[in-house]
Amino acid sequence: MQRVISFIVTNQPGVLSRVAGLISRRGFNIESLAAGVTSNPKLTRITIVMYADDAVIDQVIKQLDKLLDVKAIKEIPQDAGSWKELALIKAKPAGKDRSAFMNVVNSRNGRILDFGIDTITIQLIGTISFVNKSIELLDNFNIIEIARTGMVALERGDEMLYNLNL
Amino acid sequence: MQRVISFIVTNQPGVLSRVAGLISRRGFNIESLAAGVTSNPKLTRITIVMYADDAVIDQVIKQLDKLLDVKAIKEIPQDAGSWKELALIKAKPAGKDRSAFMNVVNSRNGRILDFGIDTITIQLIGTISFVNKSIELLDNFNIIEIARTGMVALERGDEMLYNLNL
Repeated sequence: MQRVISFIVTNQPGVLSRVAGLISRRGFNIESLAAGVTSNPKLTRITIVMYADDAVIDQVIKQLDKLLDVKAIKEIPQDAGSWKELALIKAKPAGKDRSAFMNVVNSRNGRILDFGIDTITIQLIGTISFVNKSIELLDNFNIIEIARTGMVALERGDEMLYNLNL
Repeated sequence: MQRVISFIVTNQPGVLSRVAGLISRRGFNIESLAAGVTSNPKLTRITIVMYADDAVIDQVIKQLDKLLDVKAIKEIPQDAGSWKELALIKAKPAGKDRSAFMNVVNSRNGRILDFGIDTITIQLIGTISFVNKSIELLDNFNIIEIARTGMVALERGDEMLYNLNL
């Protein structure tokens, strides 16, 4: 099952390396990782997705929480959060397939970003499952490149992991 | 200046740690990093954003390219690519400011994801500069949380970094 862990770290060289090193030394593979600045320039928010059971997730959270760089950390279950990912996809549909390709893109609320001579580049937004399913549908049209951001998530309602104004 | 480097790596434990370690050992700070699977399950695409000059970017690319895990690597300049980032933002506007907040969200093509009792969570999509500017505008409404994916990019036209079908 996909599990999403979100945490706030101090924004300085080496933090990402320590985080990734800690996880990989234990042999866990990260499905996706997204690290972006916050409105507080001293803080970065990292979101990782792993396929793991409760015991592994508990262990990863406990270990990461021990790092001095980590200010706050929490799992954000899908039913308690807004999960989103962005994907850029370049496909090379055969000439006769271009309109069928566009129909699938529209049906997935995709947006055309660029037309090449033989290729079309689009943008898709959704949960991992939504993006996976969309890629499955579009793969009939010769996908040649994909750039996915990895998931980010915020808890639903007024809950928050860390107040940026603190 | 923001510079975007995109590269394809083998999808296995330790790769992210080696990549982040190589960059941080040289004292370079990564502004954002996005790592997501491709349609080829053996390959992950990583996009990093750094503020750096030509000499530094050349050095980072040269060093990363030496890693066995790195299959292909390239800088994607903004004028030659589709650059996109996704941001989730939770704000706590004062009651009287809620409609002004919504107006700003609409003007930036944002989308409401969730209403809390006191908070509103939205989604924004654009280049780093667009997202930065949007956050600046929304910061008048008490932003309490942000989760940004970091930038992903694909080259415009038919160019490609690495054909996933190879």
